[in-house]
Amino acid sequence: MAMELYWGSGSPFAWRVMLTLAVKGLPYESKLLEFSKGEHKTPAYLRLNPRGKVPTLKDGDFVIYESIAIMAYLDRKYPEPPLFGTTPQEAGSIWQTIAECESYFVSAGDKVIRPVFFGKGLENVEGIQQAAESIRAELYAIDARLSRSNWMVGAQISAADIVIFPAVQLLLRAASKEEAQPFNLGLMPLSQTYPNIARWVSHIENLPGYERTYPPHWRQ
Amino acid sequence: MAMELYWGSGSPFAWRVMLTLAVKGLPYESKLLEFSKGEHKTPAYLRLNPRGKVPTLKDGDFVIYESIAIMAYLDRKYPEPPLFGTTPQEAGSIWQTIAECESYFVSAGDKVIRPVFFGKGLENVEGIQQAAESIRAELYAIDARLSRSNWMVGAQISAADIVIFPAVQLLLRAASKEEAQPFNLGLMPLSQTYPNIARWVSHIENLPGYERTYPPHWRQ
Repeated sequence: MAMELYWGSGSPFAWRVMLTLAVKGLPYESKLLEFSKGEHKTPAYLRLNPRGKVPTLKDGDFVIYESIAIMAYLDRKYPEPPLFGTTPQEAGSIWQTIAECESYFVSAGDKVIRPVFFGKGLENVEGIQQAAESIRAELYAIDARLSRSNWMVGAQISAADIVIFPAVQLLLRAASKEEAQPFNLGLMPLSQTYPNIARWVSHIENLPGYERTYPPHWRQ
Repeated sequence: MAMELYWGSGSPFAWRVMLTLAVKGLPYESKLLEFSKGEHKTPAYLRLNPRGKVPTLKDGDFVIYESIAIMAYLDRKYPEPPLFGTTPQEAGSIWQTIAECESYFVSAGDKVIRPVFFGKGLENVEGIQQAAESIRAELYAIDARLSRSNWMVGAQISAADIVIFPAVQLLLRAASKEEAQPFNLGLMPLSQTYPNIARWVSHIENLPGYERTYPPHWRQ
């Protein structure tokens, strides 16, 4: 029985898991939930994931949620190619990069993305610009790492790349919106501002199976 | 050469790593940084950890920071006893519990702990009480799990317990402060509000090596 992945279009957390499944070449049944219809809050879904969030993975009788936990589970169950390193040092560096992404990049990104997408807090110009400064500092550090290697840690794609990539994509999408223009976020065009990140993005876009992971409503 | 652990008294993140070292019975050299003297912002320390935070572990030439990353590194290098599970399912459940702790419990806890310890935002009574409600919901769920088992995941102590424990301790310390009393946080006494958590706390307090992990300035 194939695994079932419950996800929502545009969720960077779901995207991480889809990229993990793609890189490992694992088949899965797509269960796309429509947020606008509240499909992530139905009693049936809340039995799988009481927090009513995506993604959730069902592998036989085993149900798991929280994107990074799903990635760690998949890597332990289907170890090839290894996404959490082959040595303790690589594993540590990958987890460190993931923790930094979550603590600094994603949390600063939220302070820009939420106002731009949902309109709430757009009047807090100073807060958004402070967040944008943090975001630029994080992207600058990521770009410097990618100037020395094709991937964030080690010589192959790892969980660190997969965790960061959807967050970068979502941020760029927010930065391209009309609502973001007054803030001069200084993120685009990526090929000029962060050329090594731009190159890395195209590497990931060229991965086999990438197309299936792309948020369908972003194509419209 | 023994590992060197850079830490600060009362940091829940450093505490996680000290508990990990204790459970694995690993010797280390303690490098206690005094926050009040800015010892975490010196040029020498910033070369080890450019973010100027604790903990940082130095193991020979390898330097790593971010508490959960250090735990993952130590578990990979010194696998006994395993703290991230022995099966993919256990590993997944442990990482899921860690992610939930970070996303829901720690972030809500911060909204109470920071005002109480640093006095900033104490006037935001509604925000603090909303955070307290989230905290109580998370503790309720944790207590329910601990009513069925001695440990958060599986039959042994795991990284899930170690990640959560210092956050619970810090929260209880905040709740016991005079500044917290007007908010009626509803957390204490733990043995009445969350009896299974209270039992679990005493299990951890009885671990060999626990005493060395306890924040020294909390004894004063």
